[in-house]
Amino acid sequence: MTDYRAPTTDMRFTMEHVVGLDDLIGLERFAHVDRDLLVGVLDEAGRFTSEVIAPLARVGDTVGSVRNPDGTVTTPPGYQEAYKQFVDAGWPAAGFPEEIGGGGLPWGVAVAVQEMVKSSDLGFSLCPMLTYGAVDMLAQHASEEQRATFLGKLVTGEWSGTMVLTESQAGSDVGALITKATPADDGTYRITGTKIFITWGEHDLTENVIHIVLARTPDAPTGTKGISCFIVPKFLVDSDGSIGERNDLTCVSIEEKIGIHSSPTCVLSFGDEGEGAVGYLIGEENQGMRYMFTMMNEARLSVGIEGLSLSERAYQQAAAYALERIQGRAIEGESRDPAAIVNHPDVRRMLMMMRANVEAMRGLLYRGALAMDMARYHDDEKVREESETLASIITPLGKAWASDLGVEMTSLGIQIHGGAGYIEETGAAQWWRDSRIAPIYEGTNGIQAMDLAMRRLPMEGGAAIRRILEEVADEAASLEGDLKPMGERLTAAVEATGQVAMTLGGWLLSGEYNNVLAGATPFLKMMGDTLGGWMLARGARAAAEGPDGYTEEFLSDRIATAVFYAEHVLSTVPGLVASATAGAQGLYEIADARLA
Amino acid sequence: MTDYRAPTTDMRFTMEHVVGLDDLIGLERFAHVDRDLLVGVLDEAGRFTSEVIAPLARVGDTVGSVRNPDGTVTTPPGYQEAYKQFVDAGWPAAGFPEEIGGGGLPWGVAVAVQEMVKSSDLGFSLCPMLTYGAVDMLAQHASEEQRATFLGKLVTGEWSGTMVLTESQAGSDVGALITKATPADDGTYRITGTKIFITWGEHDLTENVIHIVLARTPDAPTGTKGISCFIVPKFLVDSDGSIGERNDLTCVSIEEKIGIHSSPTCVLSFGDEGEGAVGYLIGEENQGMRYMFTMMNEARLSVGIEGLSLSERAYQQAAAYALERIQGRAIEGESRDPAAIVNHPDVRRMLMMMRANVEAMRGLLYRGALAMDMARYHDDEKVREESETLASIITPLGKAWASDLGVEMTSLGIQIHGGAGYIEETGAAQWWRDSRIAPIYEGTNGIQAMDLAMRRLPMEGGAAIRRILEEVADEAASLEGDLKPMGERLTAAVEATGQVAMTLGGWLLSGEYNNVLAGATPFLKMMGDTLGGWMLARGARAAAEGPDGYTEEFLSDRIATAVFYAEHVLSTVPGLVASATAGAQGLYEIADARLA
Repeated sequence: MTDYRAPTTDMRFTMEHVVGLDDLIGLERFAHVDRDLLVGVLDEAGRFTSEVIAPLARVGDTVGSVRNPDGTVTTPPGYQEAYKQFVDAGWPAAGFPEEIGGGGLPWGVAVAVQEMVKSSDLGFSLCPMLTYGAVDMLAQHASEEQRATFLGKLVTGEWSGTMVLTESQAGSDVGALITKATPADDGTYRITGTKIFITWGEHDLTENVIHIVLARTPDAPTGTKGISCFIVPKFLVDSDGSIGERNDLTCVSIEEKIGIHSSPTCVLSFGDEGEGAVGYLIGEENQGMRYMFTMMNEARLSVGIEGLSLSERAYQQAAAYALERIQGRAIEGESRDPAAIVNHPDVRRMLMMMRANVEAMRGLLYRGALAMDMARYHDDEKVREESETLASIITPLGKAWASDLGVEMTSLGIQIHGGAGYIEETGAAQWWRDSRIAPIYEGTNGIQAMDLAMRRLPMEGGAAIRRILEEVADEAASLEGDLKPMGERLTAAVEATGQVAMTLGGWLLSGEYNNVLAGATPFLKMMGDTLGGWMLARGARAAAEGPDGYTEEFLSDRIATAVFYAEHVLSTVPGLVASATAGAQGLYEIADARLA
Repeated sequence: MTDYRAPTTDMRFTMEHVVGLDDLIGLERFAHVDRDLLVGVLDEAGRFTSEVIAPLARVGDTVGSVRNPDGTVTTPPGYQEAYKQFVDAGWPAAGFPEEIGGGGLPWGVAVAVQEMVKSSDLGFSLCPMLTYGAVDMLAQHASEEQRATFLGKLVTGEWSGTMVLTESQAGSDVGALITKATPADDGTYRITGTKIFITWGEHDLTENVIHIVLARTPDAPTGTKGISCFIVPKFLVDSDGSIGERNDLTCVSIEEKIGIHSSPTCVLSFGDEGEGAVGYLIGEENQGMRYMFTMMNEARLSVGIEGLSLSERAYQQAAAYALERIQGRAIEGESRDPAAIVNHPDVRRMLMMMRANVEAMRGLLYRGALAMDMARYHDDEKVREESETLASIITPLGKAWASDLGVEMTSLGIQIHGGAGYIEETGAAQWWRDSRIAPIYEGTNGIQAMDLAMRRLPMEGGAAIRRILEEVADEAASLEGDLKPMGERLTAAVEATGQVAMTLGGWLLSGEYNNVLAGATPFLKMMGDTLGGWMLARGARAAAEGPDGYTEEFLSDRIATAVFYAEHVLSTVPGLVASATAGAQGLYEIADARLA
């Protein structure tokens, strides 16, 4: 395993010249953010993650978190110390608003910190990521008293949070959950039931764990309309804020998974000891799903980041290996001497594929994060609305597109290592195994594609996606000189994507939903590759103008990567039109029973 | 994990109506092969593999083979008994020629047995697979005395064989190996050196292990021209054929791998105890690479089979799960009841993608096996030559295309399981982890692409590949009625592939090898998808004619799968032209040092 070096220059370039950080810096809300601050944050986060967190990844994978017979969970050696440093340095709080005790960094900048933490050790990163979710939930929907009791220590990371949704019969279909919440005399509730797949549901990194639990009150309507949301702390908190009694919930087992072994995936049982775990209702009864949705966007984008982060880490390792590993000879040129494998065109092709996709993912996901800030804090309502729309489109798109790419790119990382790649000790395998969760959790990629095609495509009667595609088309048309061929590829890609959007949109209008759903995944792939190309085109155009603060080599490398992406990725987009518009009939020709 | 059911009907259909088993049955050599024999072999092998071998996969994965401090290797519980039954039933010998004690099954039929064994437990299958390689080597190149001593027990599987090629500095570049072979006074050699990645290099399934070792004699030329090939038995064999002294070689460690945990991947050290391990020269000195090449074709095709086998196993498990798992509701139709996920179009799309690719892989790989038989045994020299050519093209193509597909399809198998797919206990993960080796060993897929583009494309001045593509074009043109749209997709795919072949062929002529190599991998993907479509088209056309011996449902399902493949896979082939013909310049724009 090689060390991780945070790609801070490319991160900064992406913010400054690809996604338009200036728009953000201009806002009153972020008057304190300037280029110096940005550089400082990136450098400091880069140092911290590479020195403190990245070295954990290997022991996290090999030792993993272990459940003890008493139901406690022991994290791998080094995790407690690293987590304490992480909290002491203020990283968990950095991206939260100052109003709730956060550092006030815009999400458009904090996203880079998140990328670094996830590149360093994905399993570790999930503990603060779930906490972010709990903070969002409480900040937006909890009562003042609840916020006063729980929010502060979640913001700092002294306590961690979880999201407790899934039950064995209720996965993608959250509405099927049956965990019960029975009102007690004191206004609290008693929670009983069994939840699965609870990320960091029990551990030894923090003195308390605050669970956000979905459950049903008696007589609640069926389905998603009858779900309520509760705060269920591992330890009750006394009125003076100190840790009180242990609540009635237990980690009864943890799952053995393909990867992210340091992240304990828990089965939590509520109410084994008595009446049930004490839970505090958030907001109103039966509004749980609505509250959940308000915090899902950031979490989904974060899972997209995981595809980016692991691709970056895999790329760094594969590139270092390709430069160092001697095998065979270059096929062109005079030299008959043994050569590093980076000289072989096919190895180079794989490296360029990883690099180009990393830059494309970084562009689109950072753009999504920036749009979330703009949606929240811009002065102009129209800008807020359009940003909200853009963010809501990039969210399912970025999650699925980047998480699928994560699996593909980390697999290329293995391939570049040849036989050594299949050996665990090499370390290339971990990124691939870790990456495989991202297309599954926070809504499977099939669900994301459904969301994009069924809910985003019809926004504003189709005008929302059309506006984005027009912006891509304008960018494509503006590319000149050496970038003109790239512009042509981007034009072809965006036209093909627009054509599919029209077809699926027509089916939406005529109620042919199965046809839409049959094309949703290829449509999402087309959108992702095309918008990724848009981001690379913006970067290439900016690089061609030679902005200050970057070396000539860096800028010409950005152009080379963009041109590669156009030739090898954008060029394949029109080839997906047939698959995306084939409709559902062909899927149902074979009878159910004959499929198995 | 679900049980494995051998897909014997589809195997038989593939042989009879896709690849043309009749051509083979007509040969004098295979006068004993008829439809009854075929059915009998498939049924019996199906029963044996599903009942005896398939149940090993899970313990093979979780317990794995373990090296003991004394250098012996203990296989997982149940392996010894299963292997003994495998030998007693005559399966290892089934596919070998009768002249050397084999069962005389054509490779075109034995390939189905191999598919079943590999679907049942890939790790297990590698022990006999490596033995096949050793048998081929000895049967073709060893002296009469060597054959008399070693061949019989290798053919029956009583002893196993290995291929001992790789050293830490000599992987893809075999010519870089340095293991020494020093002549002894008695005409034998003493082998010293360290070899890595030796599959089933040490184990407890057989009483002897016969290693085929590549090494250099003193004063041998450098590179591949100075490699000699030796028989190095684990135990020397006395003149009466009984087991003698332990030879001077040791398993010093086994690798911890992503998958195939039951298959011990050994580091073997030769000559630690004394002068070196006793080795017997095969054929002449310095001819080792030539001998190796004669046996590589079958081994490479077998690795392609692994992609097929694991995709089939993953498909069976995913389809069973999709029929059983209730989640959400069907979006069309009246029912608001919870539905099995097989009703969701995106799940169905994934299942159809797996199924269609399985049938395409089976077609092309079985075609390759049949071509090998024809090349060896047909009466007509021209047919032999053309078959040899076809086999030599399908070999690198089938290996790389199917092994890449194996990783992709088993990943879809995980995805269909949702969260459960990421949990090891579900068993879907094993197929994916096991599959990841196939793109790497027996020559990485990059090497296969190089082989296809640099050595197969120029065969007969380009006429060999042109002849195949013309046959595909004729098949496409012959499709009528419901299959006409498929014909159009196949025509477009074969034209695009032909266009790329022309461009790469032109670069070959002008010596622009890096340009050829830069396009080799996308070219291989285009060839594979197109030839896979060819096989599905042949099957669909045959199915439309309603041949005896198959149910109507089976035949109409074959057509549905072919049509799906045309819409969702063949349609993407023209989109790869740009990537395949982009040339190498774009790969070298970024300086080596700036890649890392």
